[in-house]
Amino acid sequence: MKGKPPYYAVIFTSLLNKEISGYGDMAEEMENLAKVQPGYLGIESAREQLGITVSYWESLEAIANWKANTDHLFAQQKGIKDWYAYYKVRICLVEREYDFTK
Amino acid sequence: MKGKPPYYAVIFTSLLNKEISGYGDMAEEMENLAKVQPGYLGIESAREQLGITVSYWESLEAIANWKANTDHLFAQQKGIKDWYAYYKVRICLVEREYDFTK
Repeated sequence: MKGKPPYYAVIFTSLLNKEISGYGDMAEEMENLAKVQPGYLGIESAREQLGITVSYWESLEAIANWKANTDHLFAQQKGIKDWYAYYKVRICLVEREYDFTK
Repeated sequence: MKGKPPYYAVIFTSLLNKEISGYGDMAEEMENLAKVQPGYLGIESAREQLGITVSYWESLEAIANWKANTDHLFAQQKGIKDWYAYYKVRICLVEREYDFTK
């Protein structure tokens, strides 16, 4: 991903319902749409039972704009109605980072 | 998990080597050890190819103490030597959160 601290991370954790018809396609579509938003820096996802998606952004304004995106609003409503048993969103300021590559 | 913002999150993303003998046991041991550290609030994990573990803490001091824990230091060194092809650690201040439960 692009960017050095300080930047923002949105930690989205979720549990899905048993019946999630259409969820995979929508999740992929939303990831592709996020990637072209202003202020987007990167996204990382993994799911076992719990799903964790972390998206990275330049500013709180970029996060607010993505949350209010019309297509994304539709997906959020569909998610609440049909797919999610639970979710939690955490808005975080990334203050420091370090990494290791073999 | 316990706690309301502001609190801290450590986002740990990783890719494993092909040969990871002993990794699963050590990961479980470290998670159990994290849970009894002062200032620990919670932990969430998922892995597909990329692994994402987010641990939650009351303060930067609690994070620093956990990083310096002797058993954890041993696990970190073993991880660099034997298990991780890549990892990245992000220290984040959780400023705001909201959730949904069906």
